[in-house]
Amino acid sequence: MTERPGRRRGGGREGRRAVRSAAAAVTSPYLTRDIPPYEILGEEGLAIIERNADIILEEVGVEIVEFGEALEIYESAGATVEGTRVRFPKGMCRDLTASAPSRFTQHARNPERSVEIGDPHMVLAPAYGSPFVRDLEGGRRYATIEDFRNFAKLTYQSPQLHHAGGTLCEPVDLPVNKRHFDMVYSHVKYSDKPFMGSVTAPERAQDTVDMARIVFGEEFLDENTVIVSLCNANSPLSWDRAMLGSAKVYAENNQATILTPFILAGAMAPVTVAGTAAQTLAEALAGIAFTQIVRPGAPVVLGSFASSMSMQSGAPTFGTPEPALVLWVMAALARRLGVPFRSGGNLTASKVPDAQAAYESAATFFPTLTAGVNFVLHTAGWLEGGLVMGYEKFVLDTDMAGMAGALLAGVDLSDNGQAMDPLLTTGPGQHYLGTEHTLANFESAFWTSQTADSNSFEQWESEGSKAAVDRAHERWRQMLSEYEAPPFDDAVEHELASWIEQRKGSFPDSDVS
Amino acid sequence: MTERPGRRRGGGREGRRAVRSAAAAVTSPYLTRDIPPYEILGEEGLAIIERNADIILEEVGVEIVEFGEALEIYESAGATVEGTRVRFPKGMCRDLTASAPSRFTQHARNPERSVEIGDPHMVLAPAYGSPFVRDLEGGRRYATIEDFRNFAKLTYQSPQLHHAGGTLCEPVDLPVNKRHFDMVYSHVKYSDKPFMGSVTAPERAQDTVDMARIVFGEEFLDENTVIVSLCNANSPLSWDRAMLGSAKVYAENNQATILTPFILAGAMAPVTVAGTAAQTLAEALAGIAFTQIVRPGAPVVLGSFASSMSMQSGAPTFGTPEPALVLWVMAALARRLGVPFRSGGNLTASKVPDAQAAYESAATFFPTLTAGVNFVLHTAGWLEGGLVMGYEKFVLDTDMAGMAGALLAGVDLSDNGQAMDPLLTTGPGQHYLGTEHTLANFESAFWTSQTADSNSFEQWESEGSKAAVDRAHERWRQMLSEYEAPPFDDAVEHELASWIEQRKGSFPDSDVS
Repeated sequence: MTERPGRRRGGGREGRRAVRSAAAAVTSPYLTRDIPPYEILGEEGLAIIERNADIILEEVGVEIVEFGEALEIYESAGATVEGTRVRFPKGMCRDLTASAPSRFTQHARNPERSVEIGDPHMVLAPAYGSPFVRDLEGGRRYATIEDFRNFAKLTYQSPQLHHAGGTLCEPVDLPVNKRHFDMVYSHVKYSDKPFMGSVTAPERAQDTVDMARIVFGEEFLDENTVIVSLCNANSPLSWDRAMLGSAKVYAENNQATILTPFILAGAMAPVTVAGTAAQTLAEALAGIAFTQIVRPGAPVVLGSFASSMSMQSGAPTFGTPEPALVLWVMAALARRLGVPFRSGGNLTASKVPDAQAAYESAATFFPTLTAGVNFVLHTAGWLEGGLVMGYEKFVLDTDMAGMAGALLAGVDLSDNGQAMDPLLTTGPGQHYLGTEHTLANFESAFWTSQTADSNSFEQWESEGSKAAVDRAHERWRQMLSEYEAPPFDDAVEHELASWIEQRKGSFPDSDVS
Repeated sequence: MTERPGRRRGGGREGRRAVRSAAAAVTSPYLTRDIPPYEILGEEGLAIIERNADIILEEVGVEIVEFGEALEIYESAGATVEGTRVRFPKGMCRDLTASAPSRFTQHARNPERSVEIGDPHMVLAPAYGSPFVRDLEGGRRYATIEDFRNFAKLTYQSPQLHHAGGTLCEPVDLPVNKRHFDMVYSHVKYSDKPFMGSVTAPERAQDTVDMARIVFGEEFLDENTVIVSLCNANSPLSWDRAMLGSAKVYAENNQATILTPFILAGAMAPVTVAGTAAQTLAEALAGIAFTQIVRPGAPVVLGSFASSMSMQSGAPTFGTPEPALVLWVMAALARRLGVPFRSGGNLTASKVPDAQAAYESAATFFPTLTAGVNFVLHTAGWLEGGLVMGYEKFVLDTDMAGMAGALLAGVDLSDNGQAMDPLLTTGPGQHYLGTEHTLANFESAFWTSQTADSNSFEQWESEGSKAAVDRAHERWRQMLSEYEAPPFDDAVEHELASWIEQRKGSFPDSDVS
């Protein structure tokens, strides 16, 4: 597990050297949390929810949709199968989960960008899955592979994001059944951060693994995790072939999956926080247990995504207090279970990157920061309930996410942090600007936003009275114009491209699914 | 202390009846926190900061500016006075603080709007002190008494705000030395929520007390707290006559003061969190001790206001992680001291209510909610580092603040909250929208924003593609057009107006200070 990734053939040696040289710029490949998680419920409350999840798994169980093999797998481990329903003896899923690692390394093709997923770390990834994009000039439109590539580049260029993410947007100009080739290829070519794989069909998960094998080398892949993928339950209490079949492929190959009940409370779960949490835990446990039956020790992440609902329209709402409560509760439950936790992000229902978008995003992101989330999907770009990936929103969110490091670092109680020397020598009414302590600490003392304007009104006005969205627009355009690809071994790139071309030609295009 | 406020003379009886009838609409005069505070430091860390504050008070002490009487007061209680410097034997300020109540009632002229200040409660008040206002049509301009009245009305109309606040904006069209008459009068006339008094000079504090005596009646005022006022230290480690003199007047009259070090870290304190916290604690302790010498048991609130600084320009920055850390630490220190705590709000350096404004505001407000703050000034309206009170920002902030109740209520673990009935009877893949449990809980299940648009893109577009600021603009204009004043006893109103007229005529206008 300690071996470094990198191809063994062709230009491998030279390639690795180039990678190491580029990687010198990596300062913080992931975050480390030095503040305690915010525990909103005590032992008693958490135990109630755990007990309820067990009862749900035993009495209701989960439905397995069009995936008979999964029924056999569950049955082989002691679950009761009736038709397509799987029920679990009390404690069975929890016992199986014990073999999952509490933390694992996801290797990037640039070893200096490999991330640790699990406590006490936090990895930030961009938004995932939107069919549309939006920017200030072009407005709202269907996403294309060009947009995908743009967001792959912007993510690579954003030091606040540790992870390349997965479906940065849906390249709807490509056939549904072949998009995954171009998405994975883009992640590998335009970035050297760790990435996510396809989950829309088990075959596409296998394609992802095969592509990773070319990039990382056969031996390395067998022993290390280089892909993390997102498998969502069909809440309530249902898992289908696409997601569970993909999870099976990844687990068999020792690759990681994030098993996430994706819940609009009131529609796909009860309207209450405790009810949503119990159902989320039950669904995630069933999914995690599945991966551990397939391959004990396969890396998994317990995911939770819960949104609330407008009482007027039934529309999903974001940045509201109830999902924040679910997030804090689920983080605690994942800690008790001993598996990494995924949740949160910068979520909003707003159509544009306005005050609503920012309030709602921050009202999700702050609970994310204080809960002790280990893997944060949707950190940047999310608009319109996930339907839209926004260019300006992406820039504003990544900037906001930049404060995570300083917040998670907590309070410095060293002598320098206590600052008693300046406190005892600077007189009342004097200022600290020129003190030795301030001068020594000033550059690193405060996190500073790169998109916020904190200047005087007069200066702001003289610079064109720009709103945040205007500054963000300028910034992403400048970033793309300055983009430089990370080094990539020519031989490996050629082999990967050839393999994709051959695979693409081996079956017809389809937009059915 | 249990007696209800209300004038004893003239139309008092009838006035009280009218007040009670109007008050039927009051649903939640203040919030109650059922979630634990987020404790970011443990015993050891907090004890270090407390020890450092004691050392600062003993070795450096505080400077008292142009207020010889305060020197005598401090000396009488055992402090060491040299010139204008006061130093405190270790533990002295803490011992004096012991007489301050951990919680007190601030009475409103409508008894149903009286608030509890102290754990486990939270009271939200609007922004304070800006010389400018801004709205979408009129842009940025100097504030007037008309703006002040508008914000007094809007605050009264906002159920999310429990408190009328104080200097909602500076009515710069009125003489500096007489503004306080019109501000207090406006609070009393246009609202029936509890309000804040003048602190710009001890005489004006006395005027506030005298006006309150007319409104609440002589006897009631002597025994109850009806005014809370904001006394800021001149950091570092300096208190002046205006603030401390006002604090003296209020304490003598059993009225409350919020003693707040207002700190731009790096300029008025060291650049570190622990250093800023130690200085804040020292300054606040010196102020609180002063009130307790003047009148043991006088209600006080420990305040903390800390902002960070741009490393490029030296401009104050808001919504950054370091002030959030200070806020969490100071809340814990106030709890250990056993006094109510004031901090937080919706702070921003943005000039306009855009995404920057909202991100920064939420990045202050979420720590505010989780820290266990008891009194939140600047909940609504703050723009441009406090220089501007924004009409649209006010609406957006109050809306955001509306989520506080649901968040602080925490997780409902009742049988209904656990929702096991619907969880065990709704099958996998079925939806919860029509279940009995959802129908029974739907209306109160989720907090819903009143300014956010969570509708589909198509519906949003058909309604004019409005941004949050557009909706907020419509909302405050509609609110003002629908404003109805709360009942106010004619005789009391007349007496108050006459008294003010007489006082105003008794000395010349001045804009000097």
